[in-house]
Amino acid sequence: MSQPPVPVQTFRAIDVIRKKRDGGELSRGEIESVVNAYTREDIPDYQVSAWLMAVVLRGMTRAETAALTDAMLRSGEVLDLSSLAAKKVDKHSTGGVGDKTSLVLAPLAAVAGVAVPMISGRGLGHTGGTLDKLEAIPGFNVNLPVAQFRRVLDTCGCAMIGQTAEIAPADRKLYALRDVTGTVESPYLICASIMSKKLAEGIDALVLDVKTGSGAFMKSEKDAAFLAELMVETGERMGKQMVALVEVVGILRGEGPEDLRQLCLELAGWMLHLGGVSSTVAEGKKLSEKLIASGEALDRFRQMVELQGGDPRAIDDPRKLPQAQHSITVSSQKSGFLASLQCEQVGTACVILGGGRERKEDAVDPAVGIVLHKKVGDEVSAREPLATIYYNAETRAARARQLLEQSFVITDSPLREKRPLIHRVIGKPGEKN
Amino acid sequence: MSQPPVPVQTFRAIDVIRKKRDGGELSRGEIESVVNAYTREDIPDYQVSAWLMAVVLRGMTRAETAALTDAMLRSGEVLDLSSLAAKKVDKHSTGGVGDKTSLVLAPLAAVAGVAVPMISGRGLGHTGGTLDKLEAIPGFNVNLPVAQFRRVLDTCGCAMIGQTAEIAPADRKLYALRDVTGTVESPYLICASIMSKKLAEGIDALVLDVKTGSGAFMKSEKDAAFLAELMVETGERMGKQMVALVEVVGILRGEGPEDLRQLCLELAGWMLHLGGVSSTVAEGKKLSEKLIASGEALDRFRQMVELQGGDPRAIDDPRKLPQAQHSITVSSQKSGFLASLQCEQVGTACVILGGGRERKEDAVDPAVGIVLHKKVGDEVSAREPLATIYYNAETRAARARQLLEQSFVITDSPLREKRPLIHRVIGKPGEKN
Repeated sequence: MSQPPVPVQTFRAIDVIRKKRDGGELSRGEIESVVNAYTREDIPDYQVSAWLMAVVLRGMTRAETAALTDAMLRSGEVLDLSSLAAKKVDKHSTGGVGDKTSLVLAPLAAVAGVAVPMISGRGLGHTGGTLDKLEAIPGFNVNLPVAQFRRVLDTCGCAMIGQTAEIAPADRKLYALRDVTGTVESPYLICASIMSKKLAEGIDALVLDVKTGSGAFMKSEKDAAFLAELMVETGERMGKQMVALVEVVGILRGEGPEDLRQLCLELAGWMLHLGGVSSTVAEGKKLSEKLIASGEALDRFRQMVELQGGDPRAIDDPRKLPQAQHSITVSSQKSGFLASLQCEQVGTACVILGGGRERKEDAVDPAVGIVLHKKVGDEVSAREPLATIYYNAETRAARARQLLEQSFVITDSPLREKRPLIHRVIGKPGEKN
Repeated sequence: MSQPPVPVQTFRAIDVIRKKRDGGELSRGEIESVVNAYTREDIPDYQVSAWLMAVVLRGMTRAETAALTDAMLRSGEVLDLSSLAAKKVDKHSTGGVGDKTSLVLAPLAAVAGVAVPMISGRGLGHTGGTLDKLEAIPGFNVNLPVAQFRRVLDTCGCAMIGQTAEIAPADRKLYALRDVTGTVESPYLICASIMSKKLAEGIDALVLDVKTGSGAFMKSEKDAAFLAELMVETGERMGKQMVALVEVVGILRGEGPEDLRQLCLELAGWMLHLGGVSSTVAEGKKLSEKLIASGEALDRFRQMVELQGGDPRAIDDPRKLPQAQHSITVSSQKSGFLASLQCEQVGTACVILGGGRERKEDAVDPAVGIVLHKKVGDEVSAREPLATIYYNAETRAARARQLLEQSFVITDSPLREKRPLIHRVIGKPGEKN
């Protein structure tokens, strides 16, 4: 005999899937139900992946994006750092190749009087991760329990750890599913993933550095600006001070030490301004320059390394860092100007050497890597070194070299113009110039 | 240490998902790979459901639809009926409420000299299934092995069974997944599902009866016509003769015995024409009328019932069919004209009585049901019976009655016009009038 009809339930996953499929706007309750049920494993992967694909293709409103971020944030622990007197400010870079700003910014902002509770991810694909760089320092522990993370933060104003199991577990489950179902590439889902983890740090303000260009995740500036706006508005809806800098990397510029310095100062200026330490961004930049020049920022980095179990001598003596066994030089075939550099290929060459990971479970060899000697726009002579490859395995080096050689384009005439580093600033909370 | 990059494989599910997500056209090989891998359980549900949602929202070209149909067809057994001299023709109705044409058409076309190898589905939701009707006949076996199906077909020119495990297994897996992931409502997927099963019958031609209206799966005539065109073109691409009749059911017409007769004659006319028995559809209709009037069609039905193990006496003596224990009459509250009838509600009332199934695994009580005494457009007096409910369980009858009473709309003035039964004929293979 047939059963009587099932009574109407408060939440049926299929109804939420259908609503999004048909372009409807989901309520906060509907989004919470999907996220909570998935975290509890009450709905199967195949329903969530269908829903994610509907989100990718139908998009989300700002209210839906904020509701998704909030539900993912509240799926886990949110740090309560209200006992710290300083304002809590963090920065987040959307994955470019070899982001190094975090290592500079956290101690720099801390020494200026801003608290930086930084929880970072590892590198994946051709991108480099902050945690992997810190772990190259012998003894450095990125897996501190929350209580110890708080103590380091209390002592030196900054601390840098990896994502714990308690932070936004819904994001970890959803990201793993997105990764294998072609549903990574959605600004709404990217925004919710980043913002849920960053807001779990218990911060007051967030400075975003959204990279665009050939080596970045967002290839077009339009897409990068859209993601930046989405993250700024989502953070603001959740009561945080937000600013995003859209930065162009890749084909048109190689990142030299001076570029990195300029970007760090720009981001630091905003962190100090949002942290209430400087009344303008310009003033924050000036203070940052002073703290770098005086060595106070570097001292604070040494202190943090020591508090997290690392050997601070490795900072001043590179021989204390893991060393590759061999090196080879890639030289220019002809004279001319370095017209472009395929960042993604350089990143992939590093992965081939063992310096990055293709799968989350892969280990990283901190000794290997590539040092670039020229940046885009530079004049080069025939047989002049363009890059040095540091490696441990011969066969890997050969493949990396082949890829690296293809990534330099040398032209006869110089480049006409250099584009500015920071392209757009999105969201200007309380900026007084 | 990181592994070297995985070599490029011939098929990666995620690449096919991404390509469809981004609106690309999949190759025949890519579609075959998804279908074959899923049938072998080499790719997980969550990748297939994401792909299905991308298909729902991005659509498919005609070539993709044909490739999907073909891959699903070839996932299982395709009957080879080439040893039969007669042309093999079947008809398929897209689910309306209470389709009864199959029981009339199979023996009618068979007696005219067309072979009808009919493999049918069961009713689901508010729709009725052919197999459930046949199983109301004591002893009737819808689960014949293929060899016996072929013998019945050889002997009497028609045979009616349920889908076996060997027929289009990919469709069974895909349909079960679509059912729970909000990916049923896609004309491309509906077309591939229906056509893969029908073409597995080894037929030469197919007559489609696509219903539209409040009681049908396709609510709008435009959607129904699109699905009809898609199925006709897909069948033609695969070398079959195809025709589709778009039929309006539901709000504007109740189906009376005369409507059923007209529809059966129309479909039979096409089956006989495509089966090479009549040179025109009109001639096929005339021959069909004669074969019904002479009782030859009914005789052939009796023969088929007996060959499939059923008691043919049940056809002439309804007391041999399962009987409900009780009945109640639903009467009109006022005088006027029956302006509309909510077919879906009537179907749902039947399900509540136990005469349909909500879940595939539900059993059906063949004794219960609803007999409608009026059709849309008929004049009714106050307290005149509109319908009789046959039931076995008091509580179910009360709920069914409530729903049934709401499904009749009585107005003061008569309806202005009656719309024709067949709205459009799509695909006219070799029709000579």
